[in-house]
Amino acid sequence: MLPMGTEKSLKELADYTGALLQGENAGDIVISKVGALEQADSQTISFLANKKYRDQLKNTKAAAVILPPDTPYGRPCLWSKNPYLDFVKIVYLFAPREPSPPPGIHPTAYVDPEAVIHEGAAIGPLCVIGKGARVGQGTVLVAQVFVGEASTVGDDCRIYPGVIIREGISIGNHVIIHPGAAIGADGFGFAPDGEKYLKIPQIGKVVIEDDVEIGANTTIDRAALGETRIQRGAKLDNLIQVAHNVWIGEDTVVAAQAGISGSTKVGKHVMIAGQVGTQGHIHIGDNAVLGGQAGITRDVAAGVFVSGYPARPHQESLRLQAETARLPELRKRVADLESRLKELEKS
Amino acid sequence: MLPMGTEKSLKELADYTGALLQGENAGDIVISKVGALEQADSQTISFLANKKYRDQLKNTKAAAVILPPDTPYGRPCLWSKNPYLDFVKIVYLFAPREPSPPPGIHPTAYVDPEAVIHEGAAIGPLCVIGKGARVGQGTVLVAQVFVGEASTVGDDCRIYPGVIIREGISIGNHVIIHPGAAIGADGFGFAPDGEKYLKIPQIGKVVIEDDVEIGANTTIDRAALGETRIQRGAKLDNLIQVAHNVWIGEDTVVAAQAGISGSTKVGKHVMIAGQVGTQGHIHIGDNAVLGGQAGITRDVAAGVFVSGYPARPHQESLRLQAETARLPELRKRVADLESRLKELEKS
Amino acid sequence: MLPMGTEKSLKELADYTGALLQGENAGDIVISKVGALEQADSQTISFLANKKYRDQLKNTKAAAVILPPDTPYGRPCLWSKNPYLDFVKIVYLFAPREPSPPPGIHPTAYVDPEAVIHEGAAIGPLCVIGKGARVGQGTVLVAQVFVGEASTVGDDCRIYPGVIIREGISIGNHVIIHPGAAIGADGFGFAPDGEKYLKIPQIGKVVIEDDVEIGANTTIDRAALGETRIQRGAKLDNLIQVAHNVWIGEDTVVAAQAGISGSTKVGKHVMIAGQVGTQGHIHIGDNAVLGGQAGITRDVAAGVFVSGYPARPHQESLRLQAETARLPELRKRVADLESRLKELEKS
Repeated sequence: MLPMGTEKSLKELADYTGALLQGENAGDIVISKVGALEQADSQTISFLANKKYRDQLKNTKAAAVILPPDTPYGRPCLWSKNPYLDFVKIVYLFAPREPSPPPGIHPTAYVDPEAVIHEGAAIGPLCVIGKGARVGQGTVLVAQVFVGEASTVGDDCRIYPGVIIREGISIGNHVIIHPGAAIGADGFGFAPDGEKYLKIPQIGKVVIEDDVEIGANTTIDRAALGETRIQRGAKLDNLIQVAHNVWIGEDTVVAAQAGISGSTKVGKHVMIAGQVGTQGHIHIGDNAVLGGQAGITRDVAAGVFVSGYPARPHQESLRLQAETARLPELRKRVADLESRLKELEKS
Repeated sequence: MLPMGTEKSLKELADYTGALLQGENAGDIVISKVGALEQADSQTISFLANKKYRDQLKNTKAAAVILPPDTPYGRPCLWSKNPYLDFVKIVYLFAPREPSPPPGIHPTAYVDPEAVIHEGAAIGPLCVIGKGARVGQGTVLVAQVFVGEASTVGDDCRIYPGVIIREGISIGNHVIIHPGAAIGADGFGFAPDGEKYLKIPQIGKVVIEDDVEIGANTTIDRAALGETRIQRGAKLDNLIQVAHNVWIGEDTVVAAQAGISGSTKVGKHVMIAGQVGTQGHIHIGDNAVLGGQAGITRDVAAGVFVSGYPARPHQESLRLQAETARLPELRKRVADLESRLKELEKS
Repeated sequence: MLPMGTEKSLKELADYTGALLQGENAGDIVISKVGALEQADSQTISFLANKKYRDQLKNTKAAAVILPPDTPYGRPCLWSKNPYLDFVKIVYLFAPREPSPPPGIHPTAYVDPEAVIHEGAAIGPLCVIGKGARVGQGTVLVAQVFVGEASTVGDDCRIYPGVIIREGISIGNHVIIHPGAAIGADGFGFAPDGEKYLKIPQIGKVVIEDDVEIGANTTIDRAALGETRIQRGAKLDNLIQVAHNVWIGEDTVVAAQAGISGSTKVGKHVMIAGQVGTQGHIHIGDNAVLGGQAGITRDVAAGVFVSGYPARPHQESLRLQAETARLPELRKRVADLESRLKELEKS
């Protein structure tokens, strides 16, 4: 609910989103903030995504609300087929511009003379860019980023402080990498040599495609041979482990602290909840959903929602949980049967 | 058991803690080390917190031991109502002073001319401080710390190397942040736009109140709108995920690798064990206890100890674990009933 | 399958590994790449570790394959008792040399005048080395590494960007530490003082012995008193938590996101899978195996494979999982018994 230095009329917001303006003279209302219904004040535009929560409309002080079409509401509003999406689009109008170093190379950064930095890229304070690395137009390395030898970062990326991108890594366009993420560290591979372990050289690479977002302190290891690949539009939260040779499909979403073991392939549009762990060398089908903390021990077919440990189809997991909860009762019934049967056997 | 360069008489330690000195001429004993009973030598003061472990007193070589009142012990000791707490207070006397850069700004740091650094603050080598940021008196940024635009760090804080504090973050007094923690990265929020995901701007902030401690490589995301808040005295261990808009209450303790999902509110004096995961948008009551690896799928009432997946009251979890372990036996009893009943039915 | 700039004849590779060369004139074949059977081309050497997968030999385009002794194969091959190990050794020949800063101290690094850097060590850009720290011969600090006061890093180590080694830490020889790992942060220890918590000074240290590898963003806390120790040859993956006073034994392997609680001792040659969590103050025997996501609540004897929560011997876990899955059927059998018994009781 901070004033954000931008003002728009409700008419402008209707035109911008294509939503239907409702309310007499409502078009002239001046909006300068975005926010949730409960915290909204008389300069704020808010939204109701689900008619179920219609009660929240009663007490809001919002100047205007984005609503599903035909929602009755006696005050100024926008009718939208996707109120949440239109709200998000409006948030962009009001969001303050993130502070960035100006284009060019900050004098405290160390850039190898053989690196190729686009003149429209901004290399912030105390970054290190290796030999032959390339950074594209409009990309911002905020500060203290490491980009290794021969790695490429595409156009319009935003790389936050403390991100480490090792050598030979390929990062597409419009990629966001949050603080402390480590891209291209060695995969975890050792060959037992009798008593000790011999390290297996990890000489593959990592490819991050366009429109990917990678969370803070997430780790994405380079392949042993070949590549680890995060495909277009995938979104990874914080503290995730992506092991060597993993592929994550387009528009797949992975929540915090999940771990994907080596060589596992995850399809498109998959949803992986927090703290999920998968076996290595398995396949997760397109549109599958992996529930929170699930332990995935084998392939998951396309479109299936699994949960629990070991993961099973979610309805089955729920049923077994319920059955387990009724075990004390089942045991009593068995004891009762035993005494009654004994009685019968006597007679 | 390292000699730490400080010497105190046992009398001085009794006066300092308020514990009762026991043993003839014991006040003159010189103590120069602190340590556990088993490793103690004749310059070491040690402690026994629980009479249950009284046996450990037999073989200790400690110069003196802090004991619960009236514990029989034929050698020099201090009687204390809280032996462990008094021991910890004594450890402070002997602990070596941590190395810190001197007050002032290290010549290799990059501090924006519009940042406001108290003359009693120490900004170590290769730190980056953004425009309008403030750092208070007595605060130490050890090295390679990033403090973003308009963020504030209060007085007497200690921020270790590699910590990233993004823009617009507020950090109180006496806060400790361990290496690599990321404060204020974008929350994980996307609006599905048919096939793809539209990033929801994360324009809220993070507020860390006084006396908070945050572990190494822990991530605390900024709010979508509004704030993520860690309240006074909360202690967070390493590799914890705190999602956007989470609140963590006063004096709550969170162990390593736990994850708190978006918008969840955790009360005061809660204890969250390692690798716990919580659902988003739920409420954990004051003084609740969440057992190790628990999967918290709904609200937890104040004072309740829950464990397991899905989390239930701990006694119930234990009972269901025990019942599950006896399933093979129960199945046998059912089979036995079946054959006996068949027999009866025949006759 | 990238050409790696090295060429070897198959004869040279046979001599180097001691494997038995098979195939007429096969010794002259020129190998310039290493890779998996499916991706191999006519310059590539590949391997088959397990005769079970012999079918993969049919379609490979590999120039030569390393095979178990006496495997029938009509094309050039090497017969080896350990095909995988010999393949890994050959990978070393072809692996590109990792880019490293040259020996010496990079002009942008900040090294305390009282630090002792071997002339054969390479201190890369923007590293910080504290007073009295020592870095040995052949060791490379790639960039942006922090080494605290009086810490030592031995010979031939490789420390990646963003690694934080606090003061008073001891690191052996041939140690590899991946990006963002935090060594020697304070252990998580607090003494409750009625309402609040008093921080327990963490004045112990961390000892990392020779040949250890530590993954990206892994955290290894310093001891409260005494030491946390990672013994010779142990291998730790990414995002692992090692709490204060933990010991990890020789040649033990720990997978990503596992967490070892305070004062737990892990034996030699233990295998700890991903996302395992252990209780504190317990003992894991030599050669034990802890299955993925296991919750280890008490000691594990040497050589035992445990899994599940709470962890039990693996065969028992599997049996209880199977029993649980059959609960709906068991309940039906009990209901059936009840109705039949009722019938009998009537008559």
